[in-house]
Amino acid sequence: MATVDRWLLPDGIEEILPPEAARIEATRRQVLDQFHGWGYELVITPHVEYLESLLTGAGQDLDLRTFKVVDPKSGRQMGFRADITPQVARIDAHTLRREGPSRLCYAGSVLHAWPQALSISRSPIQLGAELYGDASAAADLEVISLMLETLDLAGVADVHMDLGHVGIYRALAALAGLDGAAEQQLFDALQRKATEEVFALTEPLPSQVREMLRALVELCGGREVLALARQRLAAAPAAVRDALGSLESIAAGLAARFPQIPLYFDLGELRGYHYHTGVVFAAFVPGLGQSIAQGGRYDDIGADFGRARPATGFSTDLRTLVALGESRPVVESAAIWVPLSDDAALWACVRELRGQGRRVIQALPGQGRESARACGCDSLLELRDGVWQLVSLN
Amino acid sequence: MATVDRWLLPDGIEEILPPEAARIEATRRQVLDQFHGWGYELVITPHVEYLESLLTGAGQDLDLRTFKVVDPKSGRQMGFRADITPQVARIDAHTLRREGPSRLCYAGSVLHAWPQALSISRSPIQLGAELYGDASAAADLEVISLMLETLDLAGVADVHMDLGHVGIYRALAALAGLDGAAEQQLFDALQRKATEEVFALTEPLPSQVREMLRALVELCGGREVLALARQRLAAAPAAVRDALGSLESIAAGLAARFPQIPLYFDLGELRGYHYHTGVVFAAFVPGLGQSIAQGGRYDDIGADFGRARPATGFSTDLRTLVALGESRPVVESAAIWVPLSDDAALWACVRELRGQGRRVIQALPGQGRESARACGCDSLLELRDGVWQLVSLN
Repeated sequence: MATVDRWLLPDGIEEILPPEAARIEATRRQVLDQFHGWGYELVITPHVEYLESLLTGAGQDLDLRTFKVVDPKSGRQMGFRADITPQVARIDAHTLRREGPSRLCYAGSVLHAWPQALSISRSPIQLGAELYGDASAAADLEVISLMLETLDLAGVADVHMDLGHVGIYRALAALAGLDGAAEQQLFDALQRKATEEVFALTEPLPSQVREMLRALVELCGGREVLALARQRLAAAPAAVRDALGSLESIAAGLAARFPQIPLYFDLGELRGYHYHTGVVFAAFVPGLGQSIAQGGRYDDIGADFGRARPATGFSTDLRTLVALGESRPVVESAAIWVPLSDDAALWACVRELRGQGRRVIQALPGQGRESARACGCDSLLELRDGVWQLVSLN
Repeated sequence: MATVDRWLLPDGIEEILPPEAARIEATRRQVLDQFHGWGYELVITPHVEYLESLLTGAGQDLDLRTFKVVDPKSGRQMGFRADITPQVARIDAHTLRREGPSRLCYAGSVLHAWPQALSISRSPIQLGAELYGDASAAADLEVISLMLETLDLAGVADVHMDLGHVGIYRALAALAGLDGAAEQQLFDALQRKATEEVFALTEPLPSQVREMLRALVELCGGREVLALARQRLAAAPAAVRDALGSLESIAAGLAARFPQIPLYFDLGELRGYHYHTGVVFAAFVPGLGQSIAQGGRYDDIGADFGRARPATGFSTDLRTLVALGESRPVVESAAIWVPLSDDAALWACVRELRGQGRRVIQALPGQGRESARACGCDSLLELRDGVWQLVSLN
């Protein structure tokens, strides 16, 4: 291929240069420190795994977005991780095998064969936190609170939240006796808020469940939606009432902790991957169609790894956080310039300065004070009266 | 597949659990901070690239170790990075296009379809630093010094160094008029120190160059080897004398800076990837067959991206550093336990403690003081006289 094309990167695959890479590293550290401060322990999951393991519990959506290769050592199909959450669930269920709640977090690149939306990266840096072993709304409230604090830490302003609950539609569809294909068709229509289609698809159903399914199209808005849902879904199975109870409890907690953040409820929306089973949520900012952080409850994945565990968590993209966060340039103290010299005393002096956290740049042959300034130095080491001394470059 | 097998990871592909992941993160930060202190700027390279770009300048060895997939968006072949150095060279040559020396560093996972040796990971976390735009031995001395300081920072003891120079054999082979295949055959024999084979292969050559090529088998040992080489390779082209001059200068610098580190020279060894063109070096510890950090000069890669630039650098594996480094447990201050409560004053108190860097763990339904201790807490927040107070758990 021509030299001129050799450096081209694939669509949606990026390299990150200075100083953006330094901002990303700084935010990464801040967020991981925050996760640590909430009791979440870091795990590092592999970039490739056998496909059966990687896609366990995940839907077709994730399957299509996963790059696949054959492992030359085993002859088995492997995939490059397109999502870290199922890997962490495997670690909780299989490897750690702890009793009681367990808090885990991670940060790492994922790869998407197809982007989630046009103009979106195929190599986001996924950051997330997962809480296992507790099925209560208190656990959901904790991870949503941590997500909002993470956005705040990154300096993302004007956040608003969407909340829903996968269990409401699932319970109503089961009550209506819908089979897999019919359930999926109605689900698709609800997602699109295609009211006429929802009406047509529910026409043959008994009136009570029909009206409740139809109500889902309209049950979206502020916290008042939850009270309205209590009325319109009064005849629903206990699972629906439990789901509403969870949402009410989370809404109360969020309103108390984050009164400035608008909450929007949509009981007909089942956003995200197919592994979710309970509360689902996403954070948005004005002017951006995609959510900037999202998560939910996924209680069933662990069972596929031999141990059912309640699970809830969220994830976000580090580059999105840095891009949306208030511009916070990495404050860089000026560096120190060191002339070329074999003097052992100079080396000792340089080591000491670096040990103190100072940035010290070594001159290379032919480099003078011009280069020192170009490298961001404002002082240099100079031999005066037989001693290396720090002197100003100005 | 059976549930029991679903969690198995491919050979040489690892997941990293707490607390090892915390140690790796801590060492990663220390090393990147050290690179920063030496003036190296962080870049983040993509995990996949078009194959032509990824393998530019690299040899067959890297090609065989690279996982390949077809990009569904472009239909072109992509590879998962098995080495980050050529990517950084592309960034220097093509993207940054700076005049004068440029210092770049990186940290990230790479993937190997085949491990470099049995029992070695196929997913190392590569850490490295590269210095572009300066062809002098001073630049080589800088990156070798940084490598040794990095090993020291990680607590790796008993390090010894191997040094060689790819230019010596190349110049002699060119002088002998060896073609590609013959040069490779003799190279392989030299690498294996197969003296008889080297003698047989060089038999037909003119006596002067024959004796110099044969001498390479024996030119290995301490710094005295360089003086010996000056004699035995006296009739060699200027390139060989320049190479010896570089090695002498680097040896003097290292002996002054790191008198405790044994240096071993091997003028017949051309370790590492095929992209090296000058000084090559590697660090070892007793009892481990593979090098633990390695690098060298590779002046020609940039040309393939449209801009020839001198280049020298080193890389190492973060997990190896942590495994070999003196056991330094991450010192963890005890956490604070918080009861379940809706009280807004408690939330404010928790936020403040976390803001001060304290680790605060929220109780979940059913968790009492037993759980607090199991989570590493030694104190808890308790409501006393209407105020949340920090009290000891003991």
